[in-house]
Amino acid sequence: MNDLVRAAIIKNITKHQALGGAGLDEFDDGASLPLGDVEVVVSSDAHTIDPIFFPGGDIGMLSACGAINDLAMMGAKPVAMTDTIVVEEGFRIADLERIVKSMDSVAREVDAAIIHGDFKVMPKGNLDGIIISTTGIGLTKRGGLILDSGLKPGDAIVVSGPLGDHGIAIASVRSGIAFKTNVSSDAFPLWRLMETAMAAGKVTAAKDPTRGGFAMAINEMASRSRVSVWLDEDEIPIREEVKGACEMLGLDPLELTCEGRAVFGVKNEDAERVLEAIRSLPEGRDARIAGHVRAERAGYVILQTSSGGKRIVNPPLGEATPRIC
Amino acid sequence: MNDLVRAAIIKNITKHQALGGAGLDEFDDGASLPLGDVEVVVSSDAHTIDPIFFPGGDIGMLSACGAINDLAMMGAKPVAMTDTIVVEEGFRIADLERIVKSMDSVAREVDAAIIHGDFKVMPKGNLDGIIISTTGIGLTKRGGLILDSGLKPGDAIVVSGPLGDHGIAIASVRSGIAFKTNVSSDAFPLWRLMETAMAAGKVTAAKDPTRGGFAMAINEMASRSRVSVWLDEDEIPIREEVKGACEMLGLDPLELTCEGRAVFGVKNEDAERVLEAIRSLPEGRDARIAGHVRAERAGYVILQTSSGGKRIVNPPLGEATPRIC
Repeated sequence: MNDLVRAAIIKNITKHQALGGAGLDEFDDGASLPLGDVEVVVSSDAHTIDPIFFPGGDIGMLSACGAINDLAMMGAKPVAMTDTIVVEEGFRIADLERIVKSMDSVAREVDAAIIHGDFKVMPKGNLDGIIISTTGIGLTKRGGLILDSGLKPGDAIVVSGPLGDHGIAIASVRSGIAFKTNVSSDAFPLWRLMETAMAAGKVTAAKDPTRGGFAMAINEMASRSRVSVWLDEDEIPIREEVKGACEMLGLDPLELTCEGRAVFGVKNEDAERVLEAIRSLPEGRDARIAGHVRAERAGYVILQTSSGGKRIVNPPLGEATPRIC
Repeated sequence: MNDLVRAAIIKNITKHQALGGAGLDEFDDGASLPLGDVEVVVSSDAHTIDPIFFPGGDIGMLSACGAINDLAMMGAKPVAMTDTIVVEEGFRIADLERIVKSMDSVAREVDAAIIHGDFKVMPKGNLDGIIISTTGIGLTKRGGLILDSGLKPGDAIVVSGPLGDHGIAIASVRSGIAFKTNVSSDAFPLWRLMETAMAAGKVTAAKDPTRGGFAMAINEMASRSRVSVWLDEDEIPIREEVKGACEMLGLDPLELTCEGRAVFGVKNEDAERVLEAIRSLPEGRDARIAGHVRAERAGYVILQTSSGGKRIVNPPLGEATPRIC
């Protein structure tokens, strides 16, 4: 997917950074526009999830989290959001209202305003249900941007909570094993978590493991930072139920989409303090220090397994599940 | 459509203006975030047009114009753009490349950078082709925002060029009469036109007549400004071919979507100067002063017909053609 995006899209777009900010070259969660003392951070995502209502959330909640979390992971406080909603003719108005309310309640939770939107209807049969695109607009102080490329040798890797709940919540509904798993989506806005982590210590990089899951996120961080990441399998938080569902469905828990988890790089001397701070929040209760950053073998992610072995964690080759976010 | 949007969407969103800027309440082409000396203007649109390649343009060009023109009509210089592209599995990569190139070339024309994007694939049959959402980010000086509500009695109404070319280009392809009309879409980025108009005189309000066409745009301007607009039918530029196609297809040219036209309110004493300035540009060559603003009968748009009569121009009741933009 990344290769397709680079070949068919990125290469056809003129390299050009607006006002000298972070643009497409960074291939990060968002982009920035430096303006006086601040950087305006912008991030856009399309949401096509199926089903639109799922255990622990809905497409409205997800769309708002998508916009907010990408800003948060760049160190920017979300201030505003826009949306475009496209529905299939005949889409239930009660469902639309429920989705919009849910989107609004997430925005309200982080005190961001939904300031603009567009709404279009496609004829019956042209679209399966609904697509929502959101753009988040956030602010950080000039030079305060936290990029995926910021990991430094010695940094600790902190994972904010159990991985894969969202992926399993969706996959289990679709595969008809929902009754056996009882896992809810982790979808949640991450700004409070990020703010808390930044207040407690030096956060060098942050990413929410959405499409491609933790395996994708940590590989992107390692490769953009030109470092290696060494993980301890026993310290990566994954629920037993998620592991069980993965076995049934033939999925790798490290590749499952999360919508309310963060992966932080933190200066090692601050790691325990950051861990303690985010554990005081419900959304960071199960956080762990899952590994460390090294200089050698740059670009690789190495997992020290429970059984004492080592294996390389590769970025996933394809999407385990379509329409997962 | 406006009623549906208000009832199902707007009413479920918390009233909240980010940093005290223009938000959803304005129901304008975009929203703003005041930051120091500037206002950051943001506008998002979804594009679902069918066919995706049409006489005079394609969905990529349209998506970029959509973002840029909404900013321009608020008096903001476009500086950046983000996009989300959702395609159906099996969508031709060559088509995707052509669309992205076309989007990029429009952005380049106004010196805006495409700084961020998202790309998703939906399984075959879940989406007919492609949907592109764009968010434009522009800048204007603090307090420099031009709102739809800015018309004042005495202002002249300037129309930048022939109305309805885009609507007829699409409708004629879809109805199979393309060979008889030979009308190309007017899709074009409007920043240069707007900048030229603003430099030549006082622009009090501006709007691009997209969905619902000129009839919708001028009614929205009149009602938000609490004034009436009196139009002279002979001075509203519409091509003979467009009039002919409208007769064949049973469409009202005033309700046709344009993607490269602007409707300006201009201080009357500046009107001739603005007209002359925009006529010097290819995209404003056929501009006309089409009417004037009055205080009485606020909210109404009245057309003085060629035959000497008067009729009220109402906002269109529905969409003449689905997937027109």
